[in-house]
Parts: sequence; structure tokens; C-alpha cells
Amino acid sequence: MVAQLEHRVAGSNHLASVNPVFTYTFDTLPLQRGGQLGPVTIAYETWGTLNAEGNNAILITHALTGNSHAHEPQHMDDPKKAWWNPLIGPGRPFDTSQYFVICSNVLGSCYGSTGPSSIDPSNGRPYGMRFPVITIPDMVRAQKVLIEHLGVRQLAMVAGGSIGGQQALEWAVSYPELVRKAIVVAATAALTAQAIALSEVGRQAIMADPLWRGGHYPPGHGPEAGLSIARMLAMITYQSEEGMEMRFARRPAESTANPTPSRSADLGGRFDVENYLYYQGEALVRRFDANSYLYISRAMDMYNVSEGYPSLEAALRRLRSKVLFIGIRSDFLFPAARVRWLADQVRTFGGDSTYVELDSPHGHDAFLKEWEQMTNALNM
Amino acid sequence: MVAQLEHRVAGSNHLASVNPVFTYTFDTLPLQRGGQLGPVTIAYETWGTLNAEGNNAILITHALTGNSHAHEPQHMDDPKKAWWNPLIGPGRPFDTSQYFVICSNVLGSCYGSTGPSSIDPSNGRPYGMRFPVITIPDMVRAQKVLIEHLGVRQLAMVAGGSIGGQQALEWAVSYPELVRKAIVVAATAALTAQAIALSEVGRQAIMADPLWRGGHYPPGHGPEAGLSIARMLAMITYQSEEGMEMRFARRPAESTANPTPSRSADLGGRFDVENYLYYQGEALVRRFDANSYLYISRAMDMYNVSEGYPSLEAALRRLRSKVLFIGIRSDFLFPAARVRWLADQVRTFGGDSTYVELDSPHGHDAFLKEWEQMTNALNM
Repeated sequence: MVAQLEHRVAGSNHLASVNPVFTYTFDTLPLQRGGQLGPVTIAYETWGTLNAEGNNAILITHALTGNSHAHEPQHMDDPKKAWWNPLIGPGRPFDTSQYFVICSNVLGSCYGSTGPSSIDPSNGRPYGMRFPVITIPDMVRAQKVLIEHLGVRQLAMVAGGSIGGQQALEWAVSYPELVRKAIVVAATAALTAQAIALSEVGRQAIMADPLWRGGHYPPGHGPEAGLSIARMLAMITYQSEEGMEMRFARRPAESTANPTPSRSADLGGRFDVENYLYYQGEALVRRFDANSYLYISRAMDMYNVSEGYPSLEAALRRLRSKVLFIGIRSDFLFPAARVRWLADQVRTFGGDSTYVELDSPHGHDAFLKEWEQMTNALNM
Repeated sequence: MVAQLEHRVAGSNHLASVNPVFTYTFDTLPLQRGGQLGPVTIAYETWGTLNAEGNNAILITHALTGNSHAHEPQHMDDPKKAWWNPLIGPGRPFDTSQYFVICSNVLGSCYGSTGPSSIDPSNGRPYGMRFPVITIPDMVRAQKVLIEHLGVRQLAMVAGGSIGGQQALEWAVSYPELVRKAIVVAATAALTAQAIALSEVGRQAIMADPLWRGGHYPPGHGPEAGLSIARMLAMITYQSEEGMEMRFARRPAESTANPTPSRSADLGGRFDVENYLYYQGEALVRRFDANSYLYISRAMDMYNVSEGYPSLEAALRRLRSKVLFIGIRSDFLFPAARVRWLADQVRTFGGDSTYVELDSPHGHDAFLKEWEQMTNALNM
């Protein structure tokens, strides 16, 4: 599975060969929405050494289309080599000389963990849309099985942004005794109606593509136009009006070499921002599975930290860890005001929370760009 | 043409039979991006009476998927019967007892004016994507031909929102001697990169639909899924996070009767906001032409009031009319700060401009909802 994966992502930034990607497979995972999934494989990478007490581990959780490759020690100053590279390493916020840092590919994804493109053992074919509905708590429970297998008894930290931030929050609420500090970046108690709506537009674009075939497309022949359109929209929501104006404004495209998702001709010219989005759409199509996109984005929509508890207060009163919330001034997917509000709620209900806001024009994606501000926030 | 139209829009709010829809056809319109179009038909409605001097006319310009039916005297208190109904009529801001109010269907549309679904006289078939690229100045020039035909010598006012606001601005800059007052609602000097990007995602969804067929679909068998997805996205951009949270929040849908654009099954339930968007997508498909959507939305993207002049200053220094700019606090497509900035620029360059902001949570669409605030603003 992992060997296949490494082959599949050749040419992307996921240079798995530089750091070994391990997998752990277990029999079955009961699911929040009913039923169970099994066997379940989780792909993961680690850096640093677990201590004898098993309590110096940090779990890093990635974003929607991310993977386990958060760090690459051989090129630790290059953020393009691994997605949180500048934050991980000796002397950095996630200090590999003191901590055992783990990043696993999320359940439902396509970078080595079990997801819709995995083989359904009941019939020997990819699950496709027969894959069960999975949730953030399911993802977290799969991570818990993994870290227990690795000998971790308590997490010094769990940290992630976006859907990774939802997971960090869920870890702290579900397993209060297992988490000493949760770092919730650009994530809130639950998505807004607007964010759900934008997410659903992307999914409809995927499912309206006839090559989606109800989710049962042959590998390598999926709904490329639909996934590309979904990615174009997502990339807009990960940025901000302010940031896009700085970067693109109304500049015409210098080149029109990138094909449009629909392969249509340009109508009245092409703006640079359009050319950029076509490129981003195409790039995702080459590295990500459309059904994984549907399932994981849906898990984001469905997540509500209160689910399963009588109230938000009841959920938050379970917390025993410190919680650092990091909001982003220009984030319109997870608005800073809602991140701050959640931090305030935690404090109101007796928890130990801190809120830091990144002063960035880069929107939601600032947690993957503002290295100095992120470092300062994480060191608080 | 109009008779066909009335048939086509039966069941929608466009009850053209209540007020006569006239058409005027002229031979040819030279186009800003080159070439010419002809013959050109413009469908229009009027209310009130033109005076002998021909100087008491008000031109109302509609939004992207709108039409000439801005007012319905028989039901003037019902905003669902006509899109600016509460603002038009005796004693209202657009006072039909004093003014001759005209609203024409925009060039490129599908409500009686010449557009991509019209018959190309060169081959007897619908233009489809052989329709030329049209711009806001082209739309305005076609309106100028119409009002001259009607005997109008000067416009007391030209007023519209969104792409209608772009037209009102263009009128005042292109024909300073012909406009006494321009009312520019929820429109700016030019779209932002973010707004262009969102617009292009919708167009790609249309053009990626195989039923689009390069724009040459048979009438009634167009890219319904694609147009529906484009409309879903547009409806999000016409609202706001705040407004959608008030209206939908995370409520589950009470009914799942509305089909999704892709006809896919729900994944992990359905939110009310999703059900609403499916309905809105479907509703537009029943009443609007996909190619018209492509051309008109593209004209919005391309519009820049400075185009054809050495600078923004040079364009704005042409103004001779009063200009009332109305921004909307929660508009993220045409942000209020940018509307206000343009009003300030007009004043800086010696023009007579006023800025009023609607304090509304309803986003861009507030100019079609906030009747009291709109009335107060227009009476300033």
C-alpha cells in the first residue's frame, strides 16, 4: 500500500523516500455514525525518540488534502519539502530533540491510510462510495489506536490547523487525561452555514462530473474536471480578498498554458488569478482522490464539538489540558472572531485557554505560511 | 420573441402579461472589444409618462439574472411580483407620477433582449458561443439607443445594483451630459480578484457539464447541473456569513425532496442551507440561459471604469452628474469599503458624490431586501 502510494505521489512534494512512512494495521474501528470499518491501516511518520515513560509524544494533525509528511529533517528550512517543516526540529516549537513527533495520514485519505480508494476486503475492489461515513471523532479514535501501538501513554501536545485543528480539539475533549496541551489552529467549535455551503458546492462539482460514476471510477480516471473545480473554490476560501488583491489584483495572465478544468476557451481574456486557480486545480487532481475529498470535507462540515454531550458547556468542561487557540485575522472559513469566542468559552467554563491571532492577509492558509508568527504563538 | 419569452418564464415571478413588455430592434451595435452585433433587440417596460422636454426619464438597470420587470403597479406592495417594486410608484423614490421610468432587459440576457440564445441571422441558429464578447459599455450603449428611440433627451436618474450599478456608473462616465443623477448600488470601480475567481468557478461548473456541448445545446436541454452549481455558489456570494448564520446556522434540512444538482445521494445527512441552495439552483435553471450567464457574468469581471481612459482620475473627472453610492456593510462581493473609496475618489476629483451604507446582515442582496433603508438612501 505504501509502496504504491510512494509511486503515486512521485513528482509531488511528498518525498516519502526521504523519511520512512510506516503503516499500522488493526482489525476494526467502530464508527460514530454506526457500523464499523476494518481492517484499518494508518500511515505515519515520526521524528525524535519516545522516552521510557511514553509521555513526550506530540501528535501533529494535517489539513484536508495533507499527509503525514509534516517534517523533513534533511531540508528542515524548506517549507515546500514538508508542510510544517519550519515549526518542527531541534530547538523549534515541536522540538524533535526533546519530543517524539508523530504525524499520521488521516482516516479516509489516500496517502497510505484506509480510505475510499482502499480495497474493500469484502469484494476485493475499491470501496468508492461504499466507504462508510466517517467523522472527526472516528479519525481521532484511529489516531489513538496508533499512538497506543507506538507506546505513547500521554500526549505532551496535539496540534493541527483547519480539520487538523478540529482533531486537536476533539482529542482534548474526548481524551482529557491523555492530552497535556492542545493547539487548535484556524478551527472552531463547528463550521458556519456559509462554510458548509461552500464545501457542498465543491462536492456537487465533483459528483456532477460524469467521470465520477457514482464514486466507482477506475484508478487514474476519476472526475478530474469536478475535483479541479472543487479545488479552485477551496483555494479561494483558503485565502482572503485582501491577500488575493495583493497577489493578483486584476492582472491579466502572462500565460494561458494551463488548461481550464472544462477545457473551455477563455472568454474575453484570462486573469492571472484564474490561471493560478487552474494550475491549483490540476495539481490537486494529480495527487488526490476525489472520493477522499468528499468524505473528509464532509467530516469537517459535520463536526460539532458539542455532539454527544448535553451542551457546549458540558463538552468543554471535560477539558483538562491547556488549549492554545490560534485564529487568523483574514480567515473567512474559520473566522477569527469564532476562534476567539471558543477560547473565551473554554475559559468561562473553567478551562485553561489562550488565544493568539495571526495578523496576516493570507487567510485560512496563513498557518502554512506565517512561520515567524506561528513560532511565536506556539512558544507562548 | 417576447411572446416566446412570456411562455418560457411562465411560473416564475416575471408576470410579463401584467405590464406590457415592448421591444425595440435596431440594425447594429459596434462592440467595445471589436466587431459589431446586429440586429439588436432590447426588451423593456415603462411606467409613467415622458414630458415634452424629454428630461424626466429614469433608467433602472437590473442585476445579473434579472429582467425588465422592476415594477408592477397592480401589486406595488409585493416585492415578489417585481424586483424593485417597493421603490417605484407614486410618491416613492422612483416616482411614476413625476417620472417616466424605464427598465430594459440587458444585452446578452434571455428575457427578450438579444443574447446567446437569440437566433444568429447569418445561419438561422442560436448564437451560442458564437455570440461576441460584450461589455458593460456595450450594454449601456444599447440602452442609449433605446432611450433615444423613446424620445428621452436627458436622464433624470440612472439607478441599479450590482452589475446594474456598474451600468449606472458607466452611464455617468460615458455620457456625462445625459445623466443628472447616477445611483450606484453595491458596485465598485472594478471587481476584486476574489470576486473574479468566484465567478470563474461558476462558469467552469457550467462549461464542464457535458450537456453544455461547447455552448451549442438544444433549447431546454442545457447544462442544468452546471448552471445549478454556479447558482448555488453565486447565492452564497450574494449573502453573508452573518446572514446565513441567522437564517440557516447548522439546522438539518426538514425535507430532502429537492434533488441535488448532481442527483447524488446525501452523504451524512443534509443541512438546511444545502437544501435551500439546491432549490435556488434548480429555480434558476428553469428560468435562465446558461450561455447568457457566462457572457453577463464575464462582463462584470471585465468591467473597469478606468478602461479607455489614461487613469481612474481621468475617468472620474468626466462626471457631471450627482452620484449616490450605496454600499452594504456585509457585502463581500462588492465590499462596502471599496464602494466608499470610489465615492471618496469622485469627491477628490471634484465630483458631487454621496455615500450611504446599508446596515444590513443580508450581504450583496440587501439592495433587493432592505426597502426602508433603500428608500431613505434614495431620498437623500
